[in-house]
Amino acid sequence: MERIPILRMGSTLLVTIQIDMQDQTAVALQDDLADRIAQTGASGVLIDISALEIVDSFVGRMLTSISGIARVLSATTVVGGMQPAVAITLVELGLSLEGVRMALNIERGMALLQRGESDSAR
Amino acid sequence: MERIPILRMGSTLLVTIQIDMQDQTAVALQDDLADRIAQTGASGVLIDISALEIVDSFVGRMLTSISGIARVLSATTVVGGMQPAVAITLVELGLSLEGVRMALNIERGMALLQRGESDSAR
Repeated sequence: MERIPILRMGSTLLVTIQIDMQDQTAVALQDDLADRIAQTGASGVLIDISALEIVDSFVGRMLTSISGIARVLSATTVVGGMQPAVAITLVELGLSLEGVRMALNIERGMALLQRGESDSAR
Repeated sequence: MERIPILRMGSTLLVTIQIDMQDQTAVALQDDLADRIAQTGASGVLIDISALEIVDSFVGRMLTSISGIARVLSATTVVGGMQPAVAITLVELGLSLEGVRMALNIERGMALLQRGESDSAR
């Protein structure tokens, strides 16, 4: 099974999702992220999904779930880089990624985490 | 064909290699990186290979080649996150990654690029 690498950048953990997520990979990512947040005391998690051409309800649930896990470990999650076409499909499917903070790209996501804004979930 | 995403973080472009590289993917990555360096005026390229369990001569050549392309576009390339076992195999195979700057992990690689050290190729 492939594992998705988690990169530490200061107090932020960066995850780039490039492969189609399957059950096992998603569970492993959640476990690894929880471990790494606990280990490093990271205050932010940044997830890049710019390589994903499909964000279905499974990926949506995974993002919501990671965001929830990070929150109870007192870290903020920002998802960035969604392709415009993916955003359109997501809304058409009625998926809202409730509770997940979004950023246009990873650079802005990083800025968001560094500012520690609390109003970015709008 | 899968394309490897290139993330911009300030003046650095970050690439996480997670999939087994094939000819086409490697060529596409080189093209994309050259375009992005020209477009953004990035001064550094950071390549994370922590997910790679095999670095053979093909990947080695690709890293050397990316490093060379970035150099003529006046950007410095740092490769980080090599697994210890990979490092051992690499040396056993006689591959030296000549001219490629290495860092233990992405965080140190980023620090290296930000300091703009010129003696890091040792």
